[in-house]
Order: sequence, then structure tokens, then C-alpha cells
Amino acid sequence: MRGTVLYGPRDIRYEDRETPRIEQPTDAVIRIAATCVCGSDLWPYRGIQPITQPTPMGHEYCGFVEEVGSAVRLVKPEQFVVGSFATSDNTCSVCQYGYQSSCMRREFISRAQAPILRVPLADGTLVPTPGKPADDLVPSLLATSDVLGTGWFAADAANVKPGATVVVVGDGAVGLLAVLSAGQMGAERIIAMSRHDTRTRLAREFGATDIVTERGDEGGQRIMEMTKGVGADSVLECVGSQESILQAIHCTRKGGYTSYVGVPHAVELEGQALFFAHVHLHGGPAPVRRYLPKLIDLVLNRKINPGKVFDLTLPLEKVAEGYRAMDERRTIKALLRP
Amino acid sequence: MRGTVLYGPRDIRYEDRETPRIEQPTDAVIRIAATCVCGSDLWPYRGIQPITQPTPMGHEYCGFVEEVGSAVRLVKPEQFVVGSFATSDNTCSVCQYGYQSSCMRREFISRAQAPILRVPLADGTLVPTPGKPADDLVPSLLATSDVLGTGWFAADAANVKPGATVVVVGDGAVGLLAVLSAGQMGAERIIAMSRHDTRTRLAREFGATDIVTERGDEGGQRIMEMTKGVGADSVLECVGSQESILQAIHCTRKGGYTSYVGVPHAVELEGQALFFAHVHLHGGPAPVRRYLPKLIDLVLNRKINPGKVFDLTLPLEKVAEGYRAMDERRTIKALLRP
Repeated sequence: MRGTVLYGPRDIRYEDRETPRIEQPTDAVIRIAATCVCGSDLWPYRGIQPITQPTPMGHEYCGFVEEVGSAVRLVKPEQFVVGSFATSDNTCSVCQYGYQSSCMRREFISRAQAPILRVPLADGTLVPTPGKPADDLVPSLLATSDVLGTGWFAADAANVKPGATVVVVGDGAVGLLAVLSAGQMGAERIIAMSRHDTRTRLAREFGATDIVTERGDEGGQRIMEMTKGVGADSVLECVGSQESILQAIHCTRKGGYTSYVGVPHAVELEGQALFFAHVHLHGGPAPVRRYLPKLIDLVLNRKINPGKVFDLTLPLEKVAEGYRAMDERRTIKALLRP
Repeated sequence: MRGTVLYGPRDIRYEDRETPRIEQPTDAVIRIAATCVCGSDLWPYRGIQPITQPTPMGHEYCGFVEEVGSAVRLVKPEQFVVGSFATSDNTCSVCQYGYQSSCMRREFISRAQAPILRVPLADGTLVPTPGKPADDLVPSLLATSDVLGTGWFAADAANVKPGATVVVVGDGAVGLLAVLSAGQMGAERIIAMSRHDTRTRLAREFGATDIVTERGDEGGQRIMEMTKGVGADSVLECVGSQESILQAIHCTRKGGYTSYVGVPHAVELEGQALFFAHVHLHGGPAPVRRYLPKLIDLVLNRKINPGKVFDLTLPLEKVAEGYRAMDERRTIKALLRP
């Protein structure tokens, strides 16, 4: 089998490696139907988050179960399944609270940009669809695995409620799907911060009611003007930089909610500024497993079409081009098909 | 009139200054029945939060209305009133969301350790009691003005619910009243972190079910043992130091709630640690005005006795001794009577 490995900054190779097999009785091995490149893959790709050794890549996936370990009960061969980037037993106390991405037995999936993937804790991590889904739904099902699940968590963690005024900071695929999620949760006004034409169009299609093109302090001022000096009820930070988190907090009304779902890089929050901001903060790795049944259902019933974030589809062996296109912002998100 | 003025580290003077008068039509002037020294007064007293000029002190108060400005409608002369340390119009959007301590017209009260006090925005800041309260209730009514209101916000911001496991970090008067508040909100288990006998006794009297005497990492470990490695549902940080906020976050279960109600001093939160902690955070200056009607009612009906935190009562002119006693931790909280 061949799979995707990062060797260093902008050095992605698709090369021979061992085909995964069942290692633990709780494992499943799946044949990938589709995988993709994540915005978070760009941090090590760009060398901002350095790697110390050749690193297999990929954590978004869906596909067909090939084989299961002897202890697997809920997932069966031939089923079509979607899983989260974080494995979970779905039974420990943390999982029962709905925080499966912090499961006491969590592992992070990191070899999904390949035709075959071993998934630990299969019963608690994978969700099967009822029957084989239509092929045109595969991109949207893939999206539920991380990028939609993460956008959904952004909206949920920021307490988006019917009638709310929502701001989404970040126009990457997660930000765009945070717009979609806020719409599904009944937000009345959804302000997307974006200055890229194709992204702006998609944001509007996903339900954005307003677009703010200004950034930084100017962007914050614009939001304050639009909300009569009060700020937004819910601000969804979908980037992970110091600038974006501070901007998100500043745009939130007193007593409002700021969420953060992108792994923060070089972010520090100063205590007194946070104290007087008077906002609620919540975020972290999205507990995608909690949302998967609902999100899969929305996709299968064609209520949402999150797969639209994939504006480039490549054969898996062209994975390096997928990274390049995303790095250069020529594409929003690259889907890879074995 | 004489009033309390801080001149520099540990230099508190009770000295002549002008008697306050109505300045704005929305002002009230009140005759103080009781005031006190706040834990937050100790930051400038100790020189940790330096002052640049002689600074009048005091922001907790209750007493009788002496005079009101021409625009005051709801508060009347001779009424007994309690007010918050932050003034509020109680009508702006921020106030309507219940965040009166961030009112768009907020001023901070800072001259309450004196016999007479001018209160701006009287109608939105002061809450009158029905009739003149019994004299033995005055300490508890005074407590609602800040220290109980702040402890209550600590519990509310940490989402304390019936049946919850709660940890209170900090055994100052706010921490002790956070224990009381968590009990009122139905917490099943309330773990107070304290190593001082008198404070521990009061914590138990206020409803603490467990006491943890260990501090720092050891304290955190102890909490994790007591909660089977999961952490507490709600952790109330009532100190404001880097150590205490980190300890609070570490003791909170994934998806649980950490609140902070003490003005943070030299606190920085690192982005990735916060991200993977997976907790909800909320806090800031307590919106005491929101809680005052309920808290006053609980006191007048003798359901709670928060005034027990005052273990030293002094005449106002001995205010310097009140600061000294609190600074040296000889007393929990000093009440001052004109």
C-alpha cells in the first residue's frame, strides 16, 4: 500500500508503507472511500509546527469496513462508516459527558490519507450509515468526520440559539461550515468575516446574512457598528491565531459566548483583559462523535450539503498537489479519492 | 466628614475630606449603615497594584438614603438600600442581558469607607429593602453588596446545578460565600480548598462537604482522586492568581465549568493548554445588581447568614486596623460601622 507522509516543510510524499492490519481486538480496518487535507495539516506542512521525523498524515475519513477485531460488536464488515479524528470508547465518564474527543482512551488518527486505515476503538469511534450511501453524498459524509463536526462544535460551544446574532471569524472550510451550523441552529443574523470571493459566495450559500471584509481592529469596529455597540451573542473563532481569538473576544457582547475550535498556535490570553471582557469561553478539539449521528442524518436526508467545501478533487496519489493548492489558498479544501 | 484614603503601601488614613453632595440629577447620597474592607482592597494596600495618588477607598455599602437628585424615581429618602460596587443604569442593552457590572454607563464606587457616600445612577444601582431591616441583619445585607454577590456569580458562572460536584479554590470571604452559594444552588458535593481552621469551620457551616488542605499540584491531584480521575463539574476560582486559575482549570472535568471572579493579577492563559483542557470559562466583575433582589430576600427571610464572614467589627475611624488584620490574615473580613 502507499500512503501520505510529511518529511519536512512542504515536502509531502505518497510512498510505500505497510498495509494496516487489526492489532487490537477493538480495532477495525477500513477501505477509504474518501479522505481530505485539513487546515490543521497546514501547520506542520508549513513548518510552523515542526516535526521531528517522517510523519504519516490524514485524520478525516469515511469508507467501508474491511475487517474488525474479535471484540468489535457494533461495527460490521461491509458497512459504510464515518469516524472522528479522535478515537473514543464512547463509554468512559468523559464520553458520557459528550466530550469523546477527550476520551480517557483517546488516540488521534494520523494515517487516513491512504487507501486503508486502522481505526482503534472501532465501536466507540465509527458510526455506520444505514445501507450504502449514494456516491454523490460521500463528500458530505466525509465532511462530517471533522470539518463539519468542528464547525458544528464552534456553533454549539458558542451557544448559538434561535434568533441569535452570530459572527464567524475565519473563512476556511471550518469557518464556512460554522456558518452552516449556526444557520441550522436558528441564528437570525450570521456575519461572516471574509475577503475572498469564492469563500464569500459559499458563506452566503451556507446562510451568511452579512459579510465583513475588514480585518483586525477595523473588522472588530465594523462588527460593533453593526451590533449598535453591543457586540454579537455568539462569536465562533475558527482560525487559532492570537489575532483571531482576540478579535473574536472583542466582538462578543458582555455575557455572550466565544468559541474556539482551531488548535491555537502562539496564543496567550491576558487575565485582566479576559476578566473585563465578561464573555463565556468554550472550545477545544471538537467532540465530533457526539454529533455524528445527527450530522450523518442531515446529510442522508439532503438537508445540508457540507461537501461543497471541497472545491478540488484529486486522486490520492496527487495528495501533494492538494496540500499545495490549500497552502496557496487556491482551493478551500481538497478531497482525495483512492 | 472624614473618610478612608490610601496613601501608599500599608498607609491607610482616615482623614478629613469634603462631604459628598448630589452632583448629577441621577445621584443619591446615602448615610452608610455599614461598610467593610474587601479582599481586592489588599492588592493596592500591599503595593501589588500600585497607586499614583492618594486614593479614597471602599466599594461595599448599605445604608439610608439621605437625598436624591431630581431625576431619581425609584429610590426615596429614608429608605434602606444596598448597592453594587459597580453603578449601572439597569436599562442599557448590557444591563438587560444581566451584565450590569459592565453597564455602558458604569462607574466604580470607590469612596464607601466613609459615613456618607454619593451613588451615581441611583435608580439602576440601589435596591431598597421593604421597610427598615432588623439591625442584626445589617452585616448580611452589607455582604450582598459585593462579597456574597461575587460568590454567587462564581457559582452561577460555573453553572452549578442540583447534584453537581463543586470545588471552591480560595478560602477568603468570597470563596466561603461561593460555598454558601453553591449549596443554595443545590450542589451535592462541595469541596473547599482551605488550610485555615477558622475558615474551614465556616466553610463547613456554609455547606462544604469536604475540605482539601493540599495546595498547588498536590491539591489538584487530591481533587482528581476524589472525583475518580474525572474532575469536578464546576470549579469556582476565588483568588485571581496564576496558580489558582490554573489549578481551577485542572480540577475541572472535560466539558465542565471554571469560573473566575477575582480581578486577575499577572495571569496569562496559554492557548493550547486551555484548548485541550476542554472546559467552559466564564467570569469577570460580578453583576451583583442582577442578584441583589434575590439575595436581599434570602437574607431578610433569614434563609442565609452571609454576614458570618465578618469576624471583626470596628468603628470606621479604626479602618487602618481592619486593613492590617486582613493583610495579616488575622481576620476573614472586617466590618466598619460609622
